[in-house]
Amino acid sequence: MTPADTAFRDWTAHSLTQVEAALSEWVPLSAPAGLGEAMRYAVLDGGKRLRPLLTLAAARAVAGAAELPAALRSACAVELIHAYSLVHDDMPCMDNDVLRRGKPTVHVAYGEAMALLAGDALQALAFELLTPEDGSVPPTVQAHLCAALARAAGHHGMAGGQAIDLAHVGRAMTEAALRDMHRRKTGAMLEVSVHMGALSAGADGPTLASLQRYAQAIGLAFQVVDDILDVTADSATLGKTAGKDQANDKPTFVSLLGLTGAQAQAQTLLQDALAALDAADLSDDGALRALAHSVVQRDR
Amino acid sequence: MTPADTAFRDWTAHSLTQVEAALSEWVPLSAPAGLGEAMRYAVLDGGKRLRPLLTLAAARAVAGAAELPAALRSACAVELIHAYSLVHDDMPCMDNDVLRRGKPTVHVAYGEAMALLAGDALQALAFELLTPEDGSVPPTVQAHLCAALARAAGHHGMAGGQAIDLAHVGRAMTEAALRDMHRRKTGAMLEVSVHMGALSAGADGPTLASLQRYAQAIGLAFQVVDDILDVTADSATLGKTAGKDQANDKPTFVSLLGLTGAQAQAQTLLQDALAALDAADLSDDGALRALAHSVVQRDR
Repeated sequence: MTPADTAFRDWTAHSLTQVEAALSEWVPLSAPAGLGEAMRYAVLDGGKRLRPLLTLAAARAVAGAAELPAALRSACAVELIHAYSLVHDDMPCMDNDVLRRGKPTVHVAYGEAMALLAGDALQALAFELLTPEDGSVPPTVQAHLCAALARAAGHHGMAGGQAIDLAHVGRAMTEAALRDMHRRKTGAMLEVSVHMGALSAGADGPTLASLQRYAQAIGLAFQVVDDILDVTADSATLGKTAGKDQANDKPTFVSLLGLTGAQAQAQTLLQDALAALDAADLSDDGALRALAHSVVQRDR
Repeated sequence: MTPADTAFRDWTAHSLTQVEAALSEWVPLSAPAGLGEAMRYAVLDGGKRLRPLLTLAAARAVAGAAELPAALRSACAVELIHAYSLVHDDMPCMDNDVLRRGKPTVHVAYGEAMALLAGDALQALAFELLTPEDGSVPPTVQAHLCAALARAAGHHGMAGGQAIDLAHVGRAMTEAALRDMHRRKTGAMLEVSVHMGALSAGADGPTLASLQRYAQAIGLAFQVVDDILDVTADSATLGKTAGKDQANDKPTFVSLLGLTGAQAQAQTLLQDALAALDAADLSDDGALRALAHSVVQRDR
């Protein structure tokens, strides 16, 4: 292991400990009538936490080692939006998936009505986390974080991408249309994860712009790799049903570019992401660099 | 008609025109792949707009006739949360209702998957409306509005109340438990509608407290009257299926207190609401008074 690898491993372990503790504190078991259990089941399940790590890595890139309440809250908020989207996506009227990260999906474990409500409540909770009333996050920062998250989660971003996805099952798509769909569906939340980390740390305009280029590249790379793994990995490794896109006749980067073409695309996007960091004036971009590599090299 | 009646009629007509125009502008037809159509169908459908009217009436009570961008945005945001909750409530896994305000429900018109997404996107859009990037609402006000809305919509409030409701279909409930359920399920959003109007107008602590007492009383009165109408009105007048609570064996104020008892309860709550206004130092509480009366006297 290089010293950079060791530093990233230690940073990741520390960051994940913080995020898990914060989510466990903030996702309320006390919510009434089983809602809290369903919300916690959806969130506290050993996900990869890529989005929170991106948020904390971006904050660190801008502000160095200082630990910022706004960054930790942002990290948890983006994970809650991600978690709610998975709960709703898995429902019978959407992807009808029964397995997620190796466990029964929320609607299987708690029923469809509770899954619907738990997802709804997780989205609201994300905005609650961004607006603490304890003075730990300046109101102006709270407002900017809510603005960014609302736009990324809604019809401009994630929800809009899912609508495009829904409309194209079994239909051909151009590469441009596929990129647009994924830029919204997955990319918007990955981008805003980086953006909110940088906002939490008080990044200036040029830095925000460089980090946006980084985030756009890894956002798309993430989806390209997802499509590759859907055909190259097995369900046990993925922790979800492999081969699903093909079975559902969904357009993917692999169906469009071929496996080799998709793999080359992922490498190009990784280089784009690293180049964006080279161009920025950052305190410590080690974690962002390592995360870019891990997005492209992951096997699940 | 008394002069107060005429003034309220004119204020209501003016306010509804503003709200409808703003919703029509802000709920985006441009959202991709049919999502915009479904969102607009859910929102632009001639609802009573009680929540937006409460918001604008509360802003007026505090600030007089000044028209505040924060109040109009808040009015639309609470309506979007209300609209999303109806879309999700009507879905087959929840109440499985096919008729809403005399029209097919969103999942009947657009399919279940699109109804799920439209609801999700409407919730995000509510927070987007509260965080404009055009300088029209001070960031501190934006933060307070998002904080209030997130808590009212989420597990503390509306979503929590729905979970309690779900858990009690066909089961007996004490009056205290029924009040707690409705305080969350319907009351939290009615309360926050008033609160956000007052916040938009810069209300001080004592004024916010008086208006909260007003809002709590009419929030509960609203549900008591809803339960009364479920047994006394017909589906055509209601614009939704009458007798549904009874058919679903749901606990209601009528099943608990009897029809006469529920009617007396509604009158008591109306007096409580008006007394809270008497105790407050307000510029012009005419619209809030008239709305309290209309909540109790409504026939649909």
